[in-house]
Amino acid sequence: MPTTVLMEELDAFTYREMIGRGAPVIVPVGATEQHGPHLPLQTDVLLAKAMSTRLAEAVDGVVAAPVVYGYKSQQRSGGGNHLAGTTSLDATTIIAIARTLTLEFARHGARQVVFLNGHFENYQFLYEGVELATTELKQRGEDVSAILLSYWDFVDDETIEEIYRGAFPGWDVEHGGVLETSLMLHLHPELVRLERVMDLPAAQLPRYDRLPVRPELTPISGCLSSAAAASESAGRLLLDRTSAALAAAIGAELRTASDLIPAHATPRFTTP
Amino acid sequence: MPTTVLMEELDAFTYREMIGRGAPVIVPVGATEQHGPHLPLQTDVLLAKAMSTRLAEAVDGVVAAPVVYGYKSQQRSGGGNHLAGTTSLDATTIIAIARTLTLEFARHGARQVVFLNGHFENYQFLYEGVELATTELKQRGEDVSAILLSYWDFVDDETIEEIYRGAFPGWDVEHGGVLETSLMLHLHPELVRLERVMDLPAAQLPRYDRLPVRPELTPISGCLSSAAAASESAGRLLLDRTSAALAAAIGAELRTASDLIPAHATPRFTTP
Amino acid sequence: MPTTVLMEELDAFTYREMIGRGAPVIVPVGATEQHGPHLPLQTDVLLAKAMSTRLAEAVDGVVAAPVVYGYKSQQRSGGGNHLAGTTSLDATTIIAIARTLTLEFARHGARQVVFLNGHFENYQFLYEGVELATTELKQRGEDVSAILLSYWDFVDDETIEEIYRGAFPGWDVEHGGVLETSLMLHLHPELVRLERVMDLPAAQLPRYDRLPVRPELTPISGCLSSAAAASESAGRLLLDRTSAALAAAIGAELRTASDLIPAHATPRFTTP
Amino acid sequence: MPTTVLMEELDAFTYREMIGRGAPVIVPVGATEQHGPHLPLQTDVLLAKAMSTRLAEAVDGVVAAPVVYGYKSQQRSGGGNHLAGTTSLDATTIIAIARTLTLEFARHGARQVVFLNGHFENYQFLYEGVELATTELKQRGEDVSAILLSYWDFVDDETIEEIYRGAFPGWDVEHGGVLETSLMLHLHPELVRLERVMDLPAAQLPRYDRLPVRPELTPISGCLSSAAAASESAGRLLLDRTSAALAAAIGAELRTASDLIPAHATPRFTTP
Amino acid sequence: MPTTVLMEELDAFTYREMIGRGAPVIVPVGATEQHGPHLPLQTDVLLAKAMSTRLAEAVDGVVAAPVVYGYKSQQRSGGGNHLAGTTSLDATTIIAIARTLTLEFARHGARQVVFLNGHFENYQFLYEGVELATTELKQRGEDVSAILLSYWDFVDDETIEEIYRGAFPGWDVEHGGVLETSLMLHLHPELVRLERVMDLPAAQLPRYDRLPVRPELTPISGCLSSAAAASESAGRLLLDRTSAALAAAIGAELRTASDLIPAHATPRFTTP
Amino acid sequence: MPTTVLMEELDAFTYREMIGRGAPVIVPVGATEQHGPHLPLQTDVLLAKAMSTRLAEAVDGVVAAPVVYGYKSQQRSGGGNHLAGTTSLDATTIIAIARTLTLEFARHGARQVVFLNGHFENYQFLYEGVELATTELKQRGEDVSAILLSYWDFVDDETIEEIYRGAFPGWDVEHGGVLETSLMLHLHPELVRLERVMDLPAAQLPRYDRLPVRPELTPISGCLSSAAAASESAGRLLLDRTSAALAAAIGAELRTASDLIPAHATPRFTTP
Repeated sequence: MPTTVLMEELDAFTYREMIGRGAPVIVPVGATEQHGPHLPLQTDVLLAKAMSTRLAEAVDGVVAAPVVYGYKSQQRSGGGNHLAGTTSLDATTIIAIARTLTLEFARHGARQVVFLNGHFENYQFLYEGVELATTELKQRGEDVSAILLSYWDFVDDETIEEIYRGAFPGWDVEHGGVLETSLMLHLHPELVRLERVMDLPAAQLPRYDRLPVRPELTPISGCLSSAAAASESAGRLLLDRTSAALAAAIGAELRTASDLIPAHATPRFTTP
Repeated sequence: MPTTVLMEELDAFTYREMIGRGAPVIVPVGATEQHGPHLPLQTDVLLAKAMSTRLAEAVDGVVAAPVVYGYKSQQRSGGGNHLAGTTSLDATTIIAIARTLTLEFARHGARQVVFLNGHFENYQFLYEGVELATTELKQRGEDVSAILLSYWDFVDDETIEEIYRGAFPGWDVEHGGVLETSLMLHLHPELVRLERVMDLPAAQLPRYDRLPVRPELTPISGCLSSAAAASESAGRLLLDRTSAALAAAIGAELRTASDLIPAHATPRFTTP
Repeated sequence: MPTTVLMEELDAFTYREMIGRGAPVIVPVGATEQHGPHLPLQTDVLLAKAMSTRLAEAVDGVVAAPVVYGYKSQQRSGGGNHLAGTTSLDATTIIAIARTLTLEFARHGARQVVFLNGHFENYQFLYEGVELATTELKQRGEDVSAILLSYWDFVDDETIEEIYRGAFPGWDVEHGGVLETSLMLHLHPELVRLERVMDLPAAQLPRYDRLPVRPELTPISGCLSSAAAASESAGRLLLDRTSAALAAAIGAELRTASDLIPAHATPRFTTP
Repeated sequence: MPTTVLMEELDAFTYREMIGRGAPVIVPVGATEQHGPHLPLQTDVLLAKAMSTRLAEAVDGVVAAPVVYGYKSQQRSGGGNHLAGTTSLDATTIIAIARTLTLEFARHGARQVVFLNGHFENYQFLYEGVELATTELKQRGEDVSAILLSYWDFVDDETIEEIYRGAFPGWDVEHGGVLETSLMLHLHPELVRLERVMDLPAAQLPRYDRLPVRPELTPISGCLSSAAAASESAGRLLLDRTSAALAAAIGAELRTASDLIPAHATPRFTTP
Repeated sequence: MPTTVLMEELDAFTYREMIGRGAPVIVPVGATEQHGPHLPLQTDVLLAKAMSTRLAEAVDGVVAAPVVYGYKSQQRSGGGNHLAGTTSLDATTIIAIARTLTLEFARHGARQVVFLNGHFENYQFLYEGVELATTELKQRGEDVSAILLSYWDFVDDETIEEIYRGAFPGWDVEHGGVLETSLMLHLHPELVRLERVMDLPAAQLPRYDRLPVRPELTPISGCLSSAAAASESAGRLLLDRTSAALAAAIGAELRTASDLIPAHATPRFTTP
Repeated sequence: MPTTVLMEELDAFTYREMIGRGAPVIVPVGATEQHGPHLPLQTDVLLAKAMSTRLAEAVDGVVAAPVVYGYKSQQRSGGGNHLAGTTSLDATTIIAIARTLTLEFARHGARQVVFLNGHFENYQFLYEGVELATTELKQRGEDVSAILLSYWDFVDDETIEEIYRGAFPGWDVEHGGVLETSLMLHLHPELVRLERVMDLPAAQLPRYDRLPVRPELTPISGCLSSAAAASESAGRLLLDRTSAALAAAIGAELRTASDLIPAHATPRFTTP
């Protein structure tokens, strides 16, 4: 009986048993991106992995090794890709990664693959990769479905209100701000250096993208809003509520899918 | 003296004069996508082209030939790409188009290129194309900037309130709904068949994408909300307000850019 | 009952009915290319679209939205891609567009797709796109055929003789010359500025391509021969004769194909 | 002093001396393609290589190793790619080969690269490869030019008349016919099996391409016209006249180019 | 003062300081690959990361986030990619990752990038990515060098002899065998389940690759030789000797490089 | 009855008969690469072709036209790709060539394709091409297998000892050395200029790759070890022993495969 849901730590035989029992594969997708002077470069990876782990525990899933390099940081959501530390891949590479991982987990026998995104800029490229893979699988007659989501779409308005008390600056500037910092304080306090938070006004960014970016529009912290109000308790609240909402939504989706699987469609299982 | 801002109708010599005088190139980007039984397949192209024309008139620009095939329709924003009539390109093709057009207009001597998007799904792929092109131009020492926007990001809350009186169903289901239909009634009434509007409840879609899509989640109209309340006057209001907001924002951006151009950087101009 | 054959103006439901009745899809492919001081940049698009419309009317087809950006202008057929105004895509993008459109129209249920080319340089790249798509469709067991043609291959020698009276300079220098200008005078007189025609000798170009081009080999008009002898009546003659020849050839091809379709192969039709 | 112009047989040091003295590199491009029961599969390679060797001798050039796999055979020019024996590459591969070889020979120090084509279908893809490479080289400030040609464009009408006496069936059906067979009889008689020529009427092919091809439109010989009238003397005539025309045209082009080279632009030469 | 060399845990400001002081970036590259019933799927990642950390400590470097998905497992070195659990990317994706990471770290200001490989199959694809990036950087005039190595090339014959006492089965079957298991026992004993080692004879594989693979040639353990003789002390010996050899070789290389840097070439450093 | 096994010299009808009788296709893969002052640039092609011819004669196979441009020369195995004369393709092009040739020979009806490599650097890229093709063929239900090998892996230790008498410098520096030179002396003495051999010490290269290369690490001959001890008799021995070992191994593999072919799976054969 496995004591971990992390594919990284599982041996292949145990992994195969879990897939053989119908476990969905959950792929955390993050980025290596500057998050100001107080958060580590892999904040998006760590948060996506934490959400994925909670989800896997709720739905008897496996958490795949995370995708740790993401799409280029955009100024309006992550400060911009001109900043040192931010280390990004081109769109075609992200598309290829998402497409190939979907095909590989399908080859293993998984019938559901969930991409759980923690870096805004990745979303559409993951979508294309998953679209190409599921179309190909369908043409081959394989019944595999993929789910794609960003975890913050499962944060409800009540939680936002509880944490911000009316002062929510908006999702668009939530980069290195209160939400991410609170989650990190709860999950990885040893990696947060709260004393280095730069308490600056939220960024004022236009309603369009301009390239090359004007570097002066990104606050010198690299964060789009201040994390000064972050707290471990807000992080715990966010994690609990969001992972519960995720588990409810995805759990229902997976149950629907398994009802639709015809009796003869036992998961495939390739052994030596 | 040109009586049109449309590149399609201009001869090359007149076009060169306009670029030589510093005209930015505005590229309308749409899609060929089902918009229910009452709107034509090129609704997104026509709206992006109308907004682009207004903007070009305000900023002395040229409107490039529109990009008429866009990225795949997604169920949560356009009903899904499984629907007949919707005719879409892969991500890499959209990226290549945006990249190459930026490089081509730069070769002509344009110093600003604006991509004005009318199809939600295109945005990130246009971004990548523009990012690749502007990075390449910068490495070559060329001072060219690109702006990327979706026109609905310039619709203000007051206008929404005036039109919907509190009943705005949200941007996410505004596909083939009141806004697009009103704009089309104002701009191309001969292409709208209002008597065919299917007055169905707005679509209920999950907070995640699932592929392959469950076709039953898209209303049989193909529209995500009802266009029954559309009107020509709402369309006029939307067009006037939005194009004014666009002109203000982009006009300011272009002025800033031209201030930054050093005196010796006269636009290049290639003639036979 | 549709009063248009243009997919751009059709709503999705009407389009589906037409495809459901077996309508072939005809895709006009042009370019955005300088055509001298007297013709608009989209001459190739407009001519391909006019020929496609005539053909669609003759064979009960649908005209898809045109491909408006084509492959790079070559000096020996279009003056060269160094000229401002000419706005072109790379080969791989043209290939991808032709491949994907073929697959998309096949997905809609079309069993015949016709690419009607109006820009010489496109041809081989369209061929590759169509070849990749039809090979893929055949491997999937789908019976879809594609036809690829350039409209000038259907201009007969008699018509050439009637128009030129022995002075035909050859197809290779027919860029911005008598044929294109005459067709435009007949179809879009408001877009032709005949008084600006530069009456220069036909270009003298070698039997090989050389890159980078020597700009001095292209006449300063950008046209490879003079359009001074163009006339509306020659345009009418060309349009009538050529579209009749096209309708005869393609009509026969489509009838042959439909004879070959087995009874059970009713066109597929995807509705919500 | 080299006794060969073939790069294949040269050692690197001798090759470098030749490039250092300004030798242009001539790349024969052919195909592995069925040419009926009487000609070998590499007919196009052998003819392109023979023409290249003559040209190299005339202009003090080097003949690169030939490109032996070409673009897919098209039914209207080569019988079609469905035929066994014909072994072809995709367009993107041909493009990549032409682009990379141009860049590699430029890296060696060559200032002129000539692609001498012997397989109709290759031409546009070679063009794209050469266009990409020369554009890149120009942006890097390197003065390298490329020439692209098909050898039959240098066969003059008089020669055709002398050989065919009014019975020339047209270039479009000259696949495995009199011209190629005569050239092979002159150059490689041991590889021609004249007794196996199938004396069939020339193929009747439409003015458009249709995919998948109708196999019955290609004569069972695989040749588009009969080679029965081929002769060694016609081959000699063709080779002499055509290689002389080639040498005259390309020689002039190379002289022009070398006049344009500034004194300081001595060819680069990389040695260990 | 950083207490970690792991980029994952560093904030962007501290990372920039390290790069600003000339730190090379060391990228561990592994795979997600079955390693029998006794080792976790990320064995290659963990070993590459451990070697990279030791190397970074020795040369004042930074360890980048590891590449966790590698190239397809080959039967002769990893058992084959048909096995469930093994999760691999295509060659073009690995190439793109290596190319882009090199360019990104160069953008940050790093002048040396080291790819430290822990999965045999990756090597040539990493090479191509690094080759493309360094060529591009050189053309832009940037003095950045990359080093590429597999850690086992730094295991010396004496160590092999000490561990195996003449019974070394050869590197080609060292997949999931004594070396990897010993290293894991030393580094991550909690992830090794030694009681599950399958003590089977070493695989007998031909001197060629055959695809599709014959599954029966891979032992049912998925390991190519038995790990029964593995020990923590052998792992410690391997780690100490190999990381010392690595540090000596790479340290010398980096010193040479820094001698070659001209005085004005201070590392670039992009801050907000 | 064919008197040649070379596809280049075969006509299509004879080739089809050979494939129809079950002949495997053997593809020699080489490179155009400097091999010092005494060997021609196509040494790798010639050796791969000679080994392929011997193998084809032993197993009733066909030798395809060789792949004459290979992957970039690496300093540790071929001196480096900075050397003039060495003319190489990118990885993606080699992958595409291997993939497409496999698919083409499968289309012809071949059930076994053997890639016989003569240039170290090609191997992994050929592997990827073959892997993609055989996976695609398997998904289509086609029973085609591919074998990939480098001929030196079939040189046995006894032969090495006989030739070198204990002075074998190692495979890694066998570029332009005794083995290749001896084989060329036996096979193509007219292309070897033994008097130009530079008798230098073997190269001392590190255990890692470094890019850009340090040119001074490659001996000025371009060879990694001296060919002074080469002899025709050593070449004959090498050719005889190696081709016998190849024939034994591949012959057994092909027999196994043909046992596995079900009775109904007669090779496909496409004729006009």
